Amino acid sequence: MSGKIFPTAQDAESAFYEALESGDLEGMMAVWAEDEEIVCVHPTGPRLTGQDAVRAGWTQIFSGGARARVHVSHQVTLSGMMLEVHSVQENFAPEGESRGAQGRDSRPAPIIATNVYLRTAAGWRMIVHHASPAPGQAEPLPREGSHKILH
Amino acid sequence: MSGKIFPTAQDAESAFYEALESGDLEGMMAVWAEDEEIVCVHPTGPRLTGQDAVRAGWTQIFSGGARARVHVSHQVTLSGMMLEVHSVQENFAPEGESRGAQGRDSRPAPIIATNVYLRTAAGWRMIVHHASPAPGQAEPLPREGSHKILH
Repeated sequence: MSGKIFPTAQDAESAFYEALESGDLEGMMAVWAEDEEIVCVHPTGPRLTGQDAVRAGWTQIFSGGARARVHVSHQVTLSGMMLEVHSVQENFAPEGESRGAQGRDSRPAPIIATNVYLRTAAGWRMIVHHASPAPGQAEPLPREGSHKILH
Repeated sequence: MSGKIFPTAQDAESAFYEALESGDLEGMMAVWAEDEEIVCVHPTGPRLTGQDAVRAGWTQIFSGGARARVHVSHQVTLSGMMLEVHSVQENFAPEGESRGAQGRDSRPAPIIATNVYLRTAAGWRMIVHHASPAPGQAEPLPREGSHKILH
């Protein structure tokens, strides 16, 4: 499906959010493992499993045409040999606003995401994206870049 | 915090749902890794990180006193050496109904959960529980016991 190689899970995550921002379906699907066991849960959506359902979900989202900047914060990382788990907060800003701006009045509530990456023969790929709306900005900011290596 | 040893991630998951059903706070916390990086997201709730916040969240939930049977279905498992990821659907039934009953009229909507387990020196423990409400029964039933071993 794609020849892209992501040397680290973080590279795959960066490509995921770039594709999300730009509405790039092929770029998005290139991040996912070519595997029937992939799982994707969009905010308030059902669980989608398998390439076909995951692709259909992103196709539907991107067809809306709305674009937004995404600033990822509060990352907690757990790394194994074959799997890596990132818990992040996704902060969306309408296209045109600067990425780092902290004003929150016009912003949608942040999204909490659990992203799981698998080390494959073709580099790291996403296998799980579980996203759900946060009820508000409940967690204080620090904790950036928390990373635990398990091996 | 606890001397319980879970030889497999599935053992830890079984203990997790037993503790959830019985409102057993100590049993619940015995499932979690004794680690500051644990992450718990209750349905529609904020992200809780660390032992203190996770314990406080379960304390609040269990203090409500409501008990329910939980039937876990649609499990997709991804196993690494150190981490294992279970994507499941949690089907709640008010206490007193039988576990396997399929009638859905009086049931709450199912919950989608991503559960991540870590192999520690003291067996497998939970490190991430991310739960969010499913919009309905969108996914067909088969796929029970789908399990991919990565190593």
